[in-house]
Amino acid sequence: MDAQATVPEAVPGVAPGEAPAGAKFALERVVFFSDAVFAIAITLLVLEIEVPHLPHDAPPHRYWEALYELVPSFLAFLLSFLVIGRFWLSHHQIFGRVKRFDVRLIWPNMLYLLSIGFMPFTTAFMAAGRNTFVPALCYNLNLLVAGLLVWLLMYRVEKLDLAAPSPDQGQTGSPSVVAAALLSIALTFVIPALSQFGMVTIPLWRRLFRRRSAA
Amino acid sequence: MDAQATVPEAVPGVAPGEAPAGAKFALERVVFFSDAVFAIAITLLVLEIEVPHLPHDAPPHRYWEALYELVPSFLAFLLSFLVIGRFWLSHHQIFGRVKRFDVRLIWPNMLYLLSIGFMPFTTAFMAAGRNTFVPALCYNLNLLVAGLLVWLLMYRVEKLDLAAPSPDQGQTGSPSVVAAALLSIALTFVIPALSQFGMVTIPLWRRLFRRRSAA
Amino acid sequence: MDAQATVPEAVPGVAPGEAPAGAKFALERVVFFSDAVFAIAITLLVLEIEVPHLPHDAPPHRYWEALYELVPSFLAFLLSFLVIGRFWLSHHQIFGRVKRFDVRLIWPNMLYLLSIGFMPFTTAFMAAGRNTFVPALCYNLNLLVAGLLVWLLMYRVEKLDLAAPSPDQGQTGSPSVVAAALLSIALTFVIPALSQFGMVTIPLWRRLFRRRSAA
Amino acid sequence: MDAQATVPEAVPGVAPGEAPAGAKFALERVVFFSDAVFAIAITLLVLEIEVPHLPHDAPPHRYWEALYELVPSFLAFLLSFLVIGRFWLSHHQIFGRVKRFDVRLIWPNMLYLLSIGFMPFTTAFMAAGRNTFVPALCYNLNLLVAGLLVWLLMYRVEKLDLAAPSPDQGQTGSPSVVAAALLSIALTFVIPALSQFGMVTIPLWRRLFRRRSAA
Repeated sequence: MDAQATVPEAVPGVAPGEAPAGAKFALERVVFFSDAVFAIAITLLVLEIEVPHLPHDAPPHRYWEALYELVPSFLAFLLSFLVIGRFWLSHHQIFGRVKRFDVRLIWPNMLYLLSIGFMPFTTAFMAAGRNTFVPALCYNLNLLVAGLLVWLLMYRVEKLDLAAPSPDQGQTGSPSVVAAALLSIALTFVIPALSQFGMVTIPLWRRLFRRRSAA
Repeated sequence: MDAQATVPEAVPGVAPGEAPAGAKFALERVVFFSDAVFAIAITLLVLEIEVPHLPHDAPPHRYWEALYELVPSFLAFLLSFLVIGRFWLSHHQIFGRVKRFDVRLIWPNMLYLLSIGFMPFTTAFMAAGRNTFVPALCYNLNLLVAGLLVWLLMYRVEKLDLAAPSPDQGQTGSPSVVAAALLSIALTFVIPALSQFGMVTIPLWRRLFRRRSAA
Repeated sequence: MDAQATVPEAVPGVAPGEAPAGAKFALERVVFFSDAVFAIAITLLVLEIEVPHLPHDAPPHRYWEALYELVPSFLAFLLSFLVIGRFWLSHHQIFGRVKRFDVRLIWPNMLYLLSIGFMPFTTAFMAAGRNTFVPALCYNLNLLVAGLLVWLLMYRVEKLDLAAPSPDQGQTGSPSVVAAALLSIALTFVIPALSQFGMVTIPLWRRLFRRRSAA
Repeated sequence: MDAQATVPEAVPGVAPGEAPAGAKFALERVVFFSDAVFAIAITLLVLEIEVPHLPHDAPPHRYWEALYELVPSFLAFLLSFLVIGRFWLSHHQIFGRVKRFDVRLIWPNMLYLLSIGFMPFTTAFMAAGRNTFVPALCYNLNLLVAGLLVWLLMYRVEKLDLAAPSPDQGQTGSPSVVAAALLSIALTFVIPALSQFGMVTIPLWRRLFRRRSAA
């Protein structure tokens, strides 16, 4: 039996009958390009935290004060790191089910990456604005747009019939991110400083949506 | 039957008769290195948008004004994100057809990456210069050079006979980018502030060139 | 004989019975995403070194003085490059033994990456603060947290029974980093300026722990 | 015949008798991590070029003057892009011949990456210092150190007997970089502003060394 002939089925992106050279990369490249954008956006976050420069003979309490001043920046870094991590996981789950490359995935994916690549700005703006109304609203809108775009991406994958059938959690990931972002935006109008806690409810929404789709 | 002997055909970058170890990486590495450069250039764009730092008790309208001031930066970010995304797609299509690695691809590819890696500068310059003549010209020249270099890369691939035969759209991608960049440069001399809209015509040029090559 | 059925064993991340398409990427993507974060964090370190801008006719001795002023930054860059390199190697060794993807690895891995992504800040803070008490403590705490998180990751891998059995050095890597970080923290309270030399003891701890586990 | 049993020989990093899961990644990860560091270093170069911010109603000639002021930065960007590209190519050629992973490659490779990761600093320093003696010397020393480290890496690969035999150009790449860097350093003491032209001689040294090794 010819082992070679069955390899294309095991390698995503190579449809039977297609030229195997190059085609093998088609899906891989989209995924690795996306991974790189996520990784850079998540790591650039730290560049937005301004390093305190104190005189050389500054006593320790001055350093503690300088760090205390940066607490909003630290919290924003932490939150955005976890949020971008969560968005990466959604991307990971969606593309984990994609069986073959389709050029119509490129632009929905690129727009999703655009919303992720914008997060270092909204994160720094939120930290600089001490989480007051406008900066908090911008941040939460960015989350909402990213959530909608990952939903669009998932929808496109389903509609193009690119996804392997699966009853897994990937299917409730995007709606719950959107629900949590909407809650955050609603909270912005009441208590902007605490509005980001809306994101903490992601697991609750996921449980809710999973129960409904199981019912 | 010797499975080993058939592997090279399935793995791009392994020419028959070449040592398979290591050679498997030759093409992959060029592609992933290029992907990383694209991903970094596209994500660095956001670092050039200056985050507004307002006093802590600034009223919301001050924040809205600060954001309004940044509109040229946002538009430049958006445009360059999509343009670099389009250039990445051209690269993706060209290398998707490359059957094997050839060292003579390295330098045309590196020069192409150089023109991409320079875009965060020209983007920020255009945004800072409010799209007046000189900054708009620099930006559009950068697009033109990148368009010419991706054309050169495609030409090299064809000439070295590295590409799998294909009647696909990859062949009209580069000329249409060049045509759109030339239109943008012409517009710069008339209405610099709107010159970037030349890039919007890429799909029109593609349709035109495809019809002509079909004729 | 069915070649297809045996592929999953050779390809990490493909559990038997799972759809092979896409699943092949599951583990690879986590690893390459992590690699990208390590690579970015390690390369961003250099951005924190401020480039001296002297008047054009400044004599050479002014340049030497400017470089001398930067010695703490150079040392911090060098140390953090090697430390992040060491942490990357631990990650490399742990995932080198992982046989298949498990979603429960995602968050311990993400937290580990968070501690790595924070290092450009603590490195620059230490360099700006000339290694006095508070900055040195923050830096050493960052190392400790990263050391504990890589230990947690290793523990999770063992507990989920994802690792191939191996008597190799990967098993003593994390405890020795934690021990060295604890020593660095202890030194911070005595001679903060020299506290980072605690990291130099990593090889000694490794030898010690290996001897104990062999006994 | 069992196709499975022969796969490990085709996959670099999997030594016969080793557990195949995970081991497949060992060499790949080192290479992709290195690629990411090269890609980031090469793309960060552009961040060191300061974007001119002129008043909104500045006439075109002010913009041209601002760009003229940046010529040393543009030249430094261009030179370092090509130099890092050349160093990447050396890395590519060395690892293209590596047959299997060996942990003793990690640290020589990491030190080589350190010298590459430092180049955005020396490049910006050279541009800011208008290529006078001290900045030019630092830049050329950085090139020399990188050249020596890539030579060390090549030597290590040969000595550990990890490389597939090959009469190719990879073997003269490193000595010619070192020779060119030494020439640049010598030129620094005579005409610092032109010292970087020493790098242009790389192809000449390569031809010379190749002829000698052929003789």
